[in-house]
Amino acid sequence: MFSFYMPSHLYIGEGSLKKLSEIDIPGSKGLIVTTSGKSVKKYGYLNRVQAFLEIQGVKTIVYDKANANPTSKGVMEGAKIARENNCDIIIGLGGGSAIDTAKCIAAMAVNPGDLWDYIESGTGKNKMLQNNPLPIIAIPTTSGTGTEADPWAVTTNERTKEKIDFGNDKTFPCISIVDPELMMTVPKKLSVYQGFDALFHSTEGFIAAAANPISDALAIKAIELIAKYLPRAAADGNDREARSNMAVASTISGIVESISNCTSEHSIEHALSGFHPDLPHGAGLIAICIAYYEKFLDISKDKYIIMAKAMGEDIEEYSDDKKQYAFISALKKLQLSCGTANIRLSDYGVESEKIGQYAKSAYDTMGELFDMDPRRLSFDETCEIIEKSLK
Amino acid sequence: MFSFYMPSHLYIGEGSLKKLSEIDIPGSKGLIVTTSGKSVKKYGYLNRVQAFLEIQGVKTIVYDKANANPTSKGVMEGAKIARENNCDIIIGLGGGSAIDTAKCIAAMAVNPGDLWDYIESGTGKNKMLQNNPLPIIAIPTTSGTGTEADPWAVTTNERTKEKIDFGNDKTFPCISIVDPELMMTVPKKLSVYQGFDALFHSTEGFIAAAANPISDALAIKAIELIAKYLPRAAADGNDREARSNMAVASTISGIVESISNCTSEHSIEHALSGFHPDLPHGAGLIAICIAYYEKFLDISKDKYIIMAKAMGEDIEEYSDDKKQYAFISALKKLQLSCGTANIRLSDYGVESEKIGQYAKSAYDTMGELFDMDPRRLSFDETCEIIEKSLK
Ligand SMILES: [Fe+2]
Ligand SMILES: [Fe+2]
Repeated sequence: MFSFYMPSHLYIGEGSLKKLSEIDIPGSKGLIVTTSGKSVKKYGYLNRVQAFLEIQGVKTIVYDKANANPTSKGVMEGAKIARENNCDIIIGLGGGSAIDTAKCIAAMAVNPGDLWDYIESGTGKNKMLQNNPLPIIAIPTTSGTGTEADPWAVTTNERTKEKIDFGNDKTFPCISIVDPELMMTVPKKLSVYQGFDALFHSTEGFIAAAANPISDALAIKAIELIAKYLPRAAADGNDREARSNMAVASTISGIVESISNCTSEHSIEHALSGFHPDLPHGAGLIAICIAYYEKFLDISKDKYIIMAKAMGEDIEEYSDDKKQYAFISALKKLQLSCGTANIRLSDYGVESEKIGQYAKSAYDTMGELFDMDPRRLSFDETCEIIEKSLK
Repeated sequence: MFSFYMPSHLYIGEGSLKKLSEIDIPGSKGLIVTTSGKSVKKYGYLNRVQAFLEIQGVKTIVYDKANANPTSKGVMEGAKIARENNCDIIIGLGGGSAIDTAKCIAAMAVNPGDLWDYIESGTGKNKMLQNNPLPIIAIPTTSGTGTEADPWAVTTNERTKEKIDFGNDKTFPCISIVDPELMMTVPKKLSVYQGFDALFHSTEGFIAAAANPISDALAIKAIELIAKYLPRAAADGNDREARSNMAVASTISGIVESISNCTSEHSIEHALSGFHPDLPHGAGLIAICIAYYEKFLDISKDKYIIMAKAMGEDIEEYSDDKKQYAFISALKKLQLSCGTANIRLSDYGVESEKIGQYAKSAYDTMGELFDMDPRRLSFDETCEIIEKSLK
């Protein structure tokens, strides 16, 4: 038995931003949430969003202080502004942080207490939201997180160093506009990190215990597109076809997260980034991926072969008992062709002495992801994955 | 640019019916809509649905007079009963007719006038619904129509012989339970007709002008599953694995209909079934499919090759300029292996003399589907498709 639920209305493709001036907007006063980064202003995205909504009579104000890693503090500040200004819709414009902050603000604008009261795991108090969040519009300007097609917001507790997903069936965006024209200026490094993030949403979703025929079909499609177009987007940020296909692939991977599940690869990376906020999520995933996927070479053999084929590997070059290794090769080749083959965790301050702490945090904060792995990883194996990815 | 919207919460797989006793039901008084056929009572499905809902305190009454081909009359009668009994949720239990009737009742229970006022094409009056339909739960007992994952209800006007899809973004089921245990007793012939209907939702959606990367991935998955499992389900109705996979494939094909589109193959078949109500929808599609798909051998060559591969054809056996014919061969072989290779339209009273009338009806009632074809079919070509499928 499996379930499918992804109620967001997605508009995907070049020029889709204009849809904001045409489609039903479930609100009349919007809070636009962005980070303090300058790009959404500099490139005119913010102005265009406001103008398109204005055509429909939707007024907007801007909260431009979302943290790069959404915290309770930023969320609660934004929620207060939303309440004080009677906002009835929250619009996240930017990368994952802006959209995830928007999701949290949508919940906290209409619920009492602190964001951390509603976090389900770690030191979160696991309370239920009393009121439905305000409707959320997601307008990503990067491709990778998939947050436009999933209900999750990655939140950080700076004090406890926890990084935990917040969200439920009510925090799906009601509308997501995925317009690659807004993504053309993303720097190469970030494009590649986020492209790999999208890849792993699909590879994890494909091997996860929650995988099902619908998520499988979508995951393989996304894996195929990313292997084909990420190197092109990395080589030339102006390659419109590559950017478009990465935008599609990243959103498909978001759907995969919603209807299958991430695995402990994400839990381990969140733990590392929680302790080392300078470690970008995608870079952390790239660093640990080989050691992680090597753990399931036998138990997920058939799935590895399907993923390797989707990534363009010639399976016939491998002997029958080694065909699953083609997936590991494909991952290494993709890293090489994107110029990220040498990312090591120690570059970001991850320390050998703290491996036990990182691993413990991975189990404590998002431990349920370990249940999604093809087989249960022992604590020692989790430590080993980090150890192997250090230097 | 493309959009994705399929907000139904799907629960798919053996035993999923029990979910009715566990999940949030957005209503407290349900009208269960079934046809006058005896199977939902005989096999206990109706009792089980009522008992599961009762556990949650949801009371139900039954309207068991849905027509095999939903008409205004049946719909308006059901809507009156829903209103008189203050029903706040409509539950379709059965084949496509029961669920499609439920969709129409959900709309007409809370809107003035007659169903045909709201039909968008043909002799319909193309009015907008003033009020949102009541929430709809779909519980299919056959696999094929895909109505559990699309917003459409096929409606028939007996007087004008029109057969037209009714529906919009508000007529998606909010919940669909796709439990293959309810499909085990479907007779062979019907299973095969409906299995081909599902196949064509995906093959049409794959070649349609509205095709996109998400619908493509899902369509190919469904085509693959149907080619593999329909012959098994036909050979042995008790083959649980085959039934389960057909249920999945049929629902996936429904999603494909929602996010891509059907093509004129469906428009032509609806016209034929409109004039000849004894012609089952799936049988009509089987009869015309070869003549229909032969029209696009050149323009859709690449897509035909992909579909042929998904159906298990060995493409290497075909010379380079003939590889697209593998798809036609695959369709013929699937018909042979399901025992339906000899269906001709004349078996159901379709007459050579009326071909112009049928074709005209296809353009008049659901003419927009002709815009979805890989290239525009002329009126004469449409006549030719019917002519070739006659005897
Ligand atoms: Fe991620
Ligand atoms: Fe159909």
